[in-house]
Amino acid sequence: SIQYLAKKKVINMKAYQKVEKVFRRRNHLTHLQSIASWDHSTMMPAGGNEARAQAMAEASVMQIELMESPELPELFSQAQSETSALNEWQKANLREMKETWLNLTCVEKDLIEKKSLAGSKCEMAWRELRPANNWKDFLPLLDQVVQLTREEAQQRSEKMNLPLYDSLLNLYEPGQSSQAIDAIFAKTKEVLPGLIQEITEKQKREETIQPQGPFPVSQQKELAQKIMQVLGFDFHRGRLDVSTHPFCGGVPQDVRITSRYDESDFISGLLGVIHETGHAAYEQGLPKEWLTQPVGSARGMGLHESQSLLFEMQVSRSREFLSFAISLMKEAFSEKASEDFWQEDNMYKLYTKVEPSYIRVDADEVTYPAHVILRYEIEKDLMEGKVETKDLPELWHQKMTAYLGLSTEGNFKDGCMQDIHWTDGSFGYFPTYTLGAMNAAQIFRKAKLDRPEISEEISQGSLNTLRSWLSDKIWSQGSFFSIDDLMLHATGEKLNPQYFIEHLKTRYLV
Amino acid sequence: SIQYLAKKKVINMKAYQKVEKVFRRRNHLTHLQSIASWDHSTMMPAGGNEARAQAMAEASVMQIELMESPELPELFSQAQSETSALNEWQKANLREMKETWLNLTCVEKDLIEKKSLAGSKCEMAWRELRPANNWKDFLPLLDQVVQLTREEAQQRSEKMNLPLYDSLLNLYEPGQSSQAIDAIFAKTKEVLPGLIQEITEKQKREETIQPQGPFPVSQQKELAQKIMQVLGFDFHRGRLDVSTHPFCGGVPQDVRITSRYDESDFISGLLGVIHETGHAAYEQGLPKEWLTQPVGSARGMGLHESQSLLFEMQVSRSREFLSFAISLMKEAFSEKASEDFWQEDNMYKLYTKVEPSYIRVDADEVTYPAHVILRYEIEKDLMEGKVETKDLPELWHQKMTAYLGLSTEGNFKDGCMQDIHWTDGSFGYFPTYTLGAMNAAQIFRKAKLDRPEISEEISQGSLNTLRSWLSDKIWSQGSFFSIDDLMLHATGEKLNPQYFIEHLKTRYLV
Repeated sequence: SIQYLAKKKVINMKAYQKVEKVFRRRNHLTHLQSIASWDHSTMMPAGGNEARAQAMAEASVMQIELMESPELPELFSQAQSETSALNEWQKANLREMKETWLNLTCVEKDLIEKKSLAGSKCEMAWRELRPANNWKDFLPLLDQVVQLTREEAQQRSEKMNLPLYDSLLNLYEPGQSSQAIDAIFAKTKEVLPGLIQEITEKQKREETIQPQGPFPVSQQKELAQKIMQVLGFDFHRGRLDVSTHPFCGGVPQDVRITSRYDESDFISGLLGVIHETGHAAYEQGLPKEWLTQPVGSARGMGLHESQSLLFEMQVSRSREFLSFAISLMKEAFSEKASEDFWQEDNMYKLYTKVEPSYIRVDADEVTYPAHVILRYEIEKDLMEGKVETKDLPELWHQKMTAYLGLSTEGNFKDGCMQDIHWTDGSFGYFPTYTLGAMNAAQIFRKAKLDRPEISEEISQGSLNTLRSWLSDKIWSQGSFFSIDDLMLHATGEKLNPQYFIEHLKTRYLV
Repeated sequence: SIQYLAKKKVINMKAYQKVEKVFRRRNHLTHLQSIASWDHSTMMPAGGNEARAQAMAEASVMQIELMESPELPELFSQAQSETSALNEWQKANLREMKETWLNLTCVEKDLIEKKSLAGSKCEMAWRELRPANNWKDFLPLLDQVVQLTREEAQQRSEKMNLPLYDSLLNLYEPGQSSQAIDAIFAKTKEVLPGLIQEITEKQKREETIQPQGPFPVSQQKELAQKIMQVLGFDFHRGRLDVSTHPFCGGVPQDVRITSRYDESDFISGLLGVIHETGHAAYEQGLPKEWLTQPVGSARGMGLHESQSLLFEMQVSRSREFLSFAISLMKEAFSEKASEDFWQEDNMYKLYTKVEPSYIRVDADEVTYPAHVILRYEIEKDLMEGKVETKDLPELWHQKMTAYLGLSTEGNFKDGCMQDIHWTDGSFGYFPTYTLGAMNAAQIFRKAKLDRPEISEEISQGSLNTLRSWLSDKIWSQGSFFSIDDLMLHATGEKLNPQYFIEHLKTRYLV
C-alpha cells in the first residue's frame, strides 16, 4: 500500500541520513583540523608545535573511529538496498561516502600506524639528509616506507579489487587507472622531447630583460590581492597570508591561500598566488548545499590541479591577461624596472621561458611533464616490485638523461631526493600534476569554444564569463560525476592529451 | 602477596588512566576549538561564520558525548576505590576530573539545549536592543534566560548538594560559597563609599595633562610588544593580535592574547595588553606535565583575574613600573605629547584617576567593586527567586544611587542592559572580578614581603623575581589545591579583603 511504501521510504532515508550524519561530523572535525593546520603554517609560534601535533593526531584518531563505527556496514547496506528513496545527488553522495569509507578502513590499523611512524621518521630525516646530499643514510629509511606502502597497496588492491599501483592512485584520482595514464603518457612521450628541443632552440635566439627590483613585500602582497580580485577570489570567504610553502587550505566556506615573496623577483610570488587562487576558485565554487558531504568535495587532485593550472598557465600566462596585468604591475613597481622590461613582448618571453632543469617545482609547463612521467614510471615499478629502492638514483639518472638531457649522477639532492612525496609514502600522487595540466588545456579550450568572448574579456581584466562557465561545468558539480564523466560533461570528451600538446605547440612554436 | 598487590595496583591504575585518556581527548578537542575560536575573532572573514559555528557546535556535542560515556561512572568508582595506587597529583586530578564530569553532566540535556537557544536569542537581540535603550523588548527574552537558569540552578544544586546560587558560582569559582562572599563584600561595603568620596575629594584638587596624539596603531602595537617582553610574555609560545574585544585565548602551550587600539589614547590599549599578559602569564606558567588534564588548568576565574589584575593594577600602575615604562612610551611617542605630560607625577595621576561612572568595564579599581557587588546582590536574589527580572531597572537604579551616587532611571543601556553576561545566562560569574582584585592585592603584598627586591627590580624593568615567586606559588600549582588552600599556600591565609582595602588606601590616600 501507499502508506507502507511511504513508511518504508522514511525508514530507508533514515539509514542514509544516519550515514550522512557520520560524514557531517567527520567534516566538522576536518574543518577544525584545516583551520588549525593553516594556523600551524602561518601563525603558530614554534613552541606550540608539540601540543598542536597531539591535538591534530587525536582528531585523526577520532575520524578513524568514526569510520570504524560498528553500525556503518549495516547502515550502508540498508541505504544501498533502497536507493529508490534517494534523489540523484543523494545517490551520488552514498557512492562517494562508501568509497571514502572503504578507502579509510581497508588497511589494517597496525600497518597504518607503522607506515605513519616510518613516514614521519623518513620525512624528518629527509629535511637534513637532502641538503647534505646523503643518499646512504636516507636509503634504509625510504626503503622502510616503500616496503610498508607495498604492503598497503597489497591490502588495498585486494579489498578494492584494483591493480596494485591503481589502489594507491585512487586515493588521489578516484576511478583513474594506470592503464589509461600509460596511454596518455605514452602519447606525451612521443612528442615531448622533440618539442622541448624545438622550443629551446627557438628561444635561444630571443633576448629578455630582467627587472631590477628590489620589490618590497608589502607592495607585492598588495598587487597579489588586486590580481586575486581580478581573478574573482571571494575575500568575504577567504584570506591571503604568508607561509614557507604556498598552499590552498582552510575550508570551502573560508578558503585560506598562502604565498611567499622574494624581494628580488615579484613574478614568481605572483604566479604562486595565481596558482593558489585557481585552487581556491574550485573550493569556493563547490556546491553550497553539499559542502559537509563527500559528494560536495572536489573531484580528485588532478581536477584540482587543473583549476590552479588553468588560472596560472592557461589564463595568466596568456597574452590577453598579460596585456591587462602589466598595467597593475607597473602601478606597483614602475620605477623598479626599465621601460623595456615592461614591454608586453618582453614580459611574455619571461613568462614563457622554457629550460630543462633538475627541480620539478621550478620547471616550466613544457618540461614539467617529463619530471612527472619519470616519477610515475619509477613509482609504479617500485610498487609492483619491478625495481627496488636502492635502484632509484641510477633509474633517475637514466630517465633524466633520456627525457631532459640532464645527468643526476651522484647528485641525489637535485635528483631522487628532491621531493617530499615519497618520504611519507604518498606514492600515486605525482601523475595528478600532469593530468591536471592536461585537463586544464582541454577545459580552457572548450570554455573558449563555448563562449568566444572569454579571451576578449580577459584582456579587459574580467574573468566573469570564464568563471561562470567553470562554475557551471566543474566547480558546482563537486563529486557528482566520476572524473571521466565530469570531463565528458564539461568538454564533450574524456581526458585527451592532444589538447595539451596543441596548447604547447600554439603557445611556444607559433 | 606482593605480587597480588602489584597486579591490583596495575588494574586500578588502569581505571584511572582510562579516565585520564577521556579527559585528554576532551582537552585535544578543546585545543582545536580554542584555536578556531581565536581565529574567529582575529582572522576569519565574515563569510566563514556559519560553517565555523557548525563545526564548533559539533565539537561541543562530541565533548558532551565524551562526558556521557556509559563506562565513566564505573571507571570513576573503580579509580576512586583504589586511590592508594595514585600519587598526590593523580589524586588531585581524579578529584578535578570528577568535579568537571559532574558539572558537565548534572543538568538535563533538554534544559541545556533550551537555555543555549534562549541565550543565543537573547544575546543576539541584546546587540541591537542595548544601543536602542529598549528594555521593553529585552525583558521577555532575558526573563526566559532567567527562568531557565533558575531551573538549571535547581538541578545543579540537588546533584551537587549546594545552595542554589552557589551551584552556579561553582562553575567559575569551584569550592567558593556565597556565604564567604557575603562576608567579604559586607566588609568592603562598610569601607568603600567613604573611600570613594575621600579619594574623589582629594583628586578634585589635582590637575592632569592629557596627551595630544594621534598615536599610530603600528607604534602602539610595537610598544605593547616591548612591554610584554618586559612582563615576561613568552613569544615562543604565544602571540599578540587585534580583535574587537580583547581576550586571552589559545592554549597554555600557545597563548593568544588580543588587544584593540585607539589612535587618540595609547594608554587604554596598553593597559588592556598588560591585563591580558597577566592572564597569559598564568596560562604559560601552568604545570607542563599536566596541561591536558583538569588538574593542570587554572584554579578558577577569580584566580585567573587575580593574575591579570596583579599585572595591570598592582604592577603596571605602580610608581616603580611607571618610572621605567615612561622611557619606553617616550621612545614611541615623545613628540605626541608635551614634556609636562611625560612627568611621572602626571602619568601616575592619569593612571590612578578615580571617578564613579555608569559602565563597569570602564571603571577604575576603586569604584569597580561597587559595580560587582551590585550585580552579585541582584543576581543572587534573582536566582533565589527573591526578585524578578522585571524589577531589574529599579533595583539597579537604587543600588547605583546608593553605592556610586548615580541614577540610572530610564537609562537602561548604561544600567542593567550594559553587560553581556546575563544575556546567555552566565549568572555567578560577576563576583570573580572583585575576588580577583582582592586576591591580587593579597598575593602581590605577600610576594613583596617574601622577596623585598621585587619593587626595586620592577623599577629597573624586570619582573624576574616576581614571576618566579608567582610561578612557584600560583601558576605551577594548577588546580592541585582548592582555592582556599592555594591562597593559604601562597600567602599564609585564605582570601582576606583587608589587603585590598589597604592597597586602595595606600595608593589613593597616602
